[in-house]
Amino acid sequence: MSIIAFQGEHGAYSEIASLKYFGDKVKLSPSFSIDLVFNKVKTGKADFGVVPVENSSFGSIFETYDYLSKYDLFITGELNLQVNHYLLAEKKYKLDEIKKVYSHPQALGQSSEFLKTLKNAKIHPAYDTAGSAIISGPEKGEPVAIVASKNAAAIYGLKILKANIQNNKENYTRFLVISKKSNKQKIASPKSSICFELQNVPGSLFKALSIFALRDINLAKIESRPIPQKPFQYVFYVDLYADLSEQKIKNAINHLEEIAVSVKKFGAYETGKIFRS
Amino acid sequence: MSIIAFQGEHGAYSEIASLKYFGDKVKLSPSFSIDLVFNKVKTGKADFGVVPVENSSFGSIFETYDYLSKYDLFITGELNLQVNHYLLAEKKYKLDEIKKVYSHPQALGQSSEFLKTLKNAKIHPAYDTAGSAIISGPEKGEPVAIVASKNAAAIYGLKILKANIQNNKENYTRFLVISKKSNKQKIASPKSSICFELQNVPGSLFKALSIFALRDINLAKIESRPIPQKPFQYVFYVDLYADLSEQKIKNAINHLEEIAVSVKKFGAYETGKIFRS
Repeated sequence: MSIIAFQGEHGAYSEIASLKYFGDKVKLSPSFSIDLVFNKVKTGKADFGVVPVENSSFGSIFETYDYLSKYDLFITGELNLQVNHYLLAEKKYKLDEIKKVYSHPQALGQSSEFLKTLKNAKIHPAYDTAGSAIISGPEKGEPVAIVASKNAAAIYGLKILKANIQNNKENYTRFLVISKKSNKQKIASPKSSICFELQNVPGSLFKALSIFALRDINLAKIESRPIPQKPFQYVFYVDLYADLSEQKIKNAINHLEEIAVSVKKFGAYETGKIFRS
Repeated sequence: MSIIAFQGEHGAYSEIASLKYFGDKVKLSPSFSIDLVFNKVKTGKADFGVVPVENSSFGSIFETYDYLSKYDLFITGELNLQVNHYLLAEKKYKLDEIKKVYSHPQALGQSSEFLKTLKNAKIHPAYDTAGSAIISGPEKGEPVAIVASKNAAAIYGLKILKANIQNNKENYTRFLVISKKSNKQKIASPKSSICFELQNVPGSLFKALSIFALRDINLAKIESRPIPQKPFQYVFYVDLYADLSEQKIKNAINHLEEIAVSVKKFGAYETGKIFRS
């Protein structure tokens, strides 16, 4: 039975994503941080990891990009989860009695408009959505609420004070599946991810993108992350609608290596399906 | 006397940046959030705002990008502040007695390696660096520390438990100066900022960048932000080494408007100098 490491506690969106992707015939391994998910996969404590990489309302999850570079792992899959946030509390409390709300900064950001209407409540970022239900353990009995999934309500025996509190009803989180081994399966609708550092000269990004554009290879996303040792220089993460094993893409990567300081390949995988949480 | 709104409480890095940029013959207006800084400038409660936009170790400050689009304001200047973080606490405490550390998530991220060595301390994100000294008011007398500037130690009467705790000694934050009026002064070494949304068709970003590359207009930075109503589509924020009032740049923007869904111009300003905090 495969072991799947996911970020957060039971009831976290990453756990829901893991179940949608792998089904329930797997062993799920809750992990305090995204770093720990990568670590478990790297050290063989888990076969796969499931990590959030981007939310359609709030943007990229930088940590995941940075750990992709740090750990030498492959992306073997992706999926999109439609995320519905719920405000949960102990059964005895009403909405206007809530004094504190805990959740992951991303979940708080995605629910900011509703949270602004809670005049008496202070908002506290926590390391997780579902996990904050456990963190708030010492405050059991106090008027504390969390922003979390519907699953978390069932798991922690909490009441739904308000359903679907996200700012945007079309709110999706994209997750990556990571592994020590690259994908060997046939891919019907492929995507590939790479990152590269360019020389700090004018026009270098334009030249890098032209390598793909002139070969009709389409970009799904581009993200830049800072290089701490080189202030205000960047590593570019690019997702391509292509399979790294195609000759055309191999040629493009060779071309990129001619002009880049460095290139890393994270493998090819099936373009993610959409699931409802 | 000009009123300058900055994000945070007295002693915050944004206040130090404001003083470096404007000198001390201004009235400084502390503001709880980046949103409030934009709001004060928009409603005329402040003449200028000073907001962080990027840290060289930790990356972009997304909020600032999103508020640039939301509020109809101009960028009139920028500066780079070398940021040194200090661990501060009440005078009676030693380093190994600290049980909680508060600071802004960016400051915590930039000091993560040192903070990991504090085995007994829990790390709590707070809305501000200096402000967390005030937030921790109710915990006065408890073994609480904050990650903040040297200035905050003096302002709040705190002891330096450890100096220069940032992961990277070359740690810079770039700040933008925002105003209701665009820059009318002559600019010696110009930068301009724009944002644009492109049609969701293959090669659109490549075409947009070619508009600048083919005119030898150099990019300083590109950042993408999600469009919440259009899942996994992006607005691109681009900084150019150019002055929007030059004919060549006007031509480029006209060309961009031919192919883009929308283009916004945030004005031209002097390329930022480096200051030490």
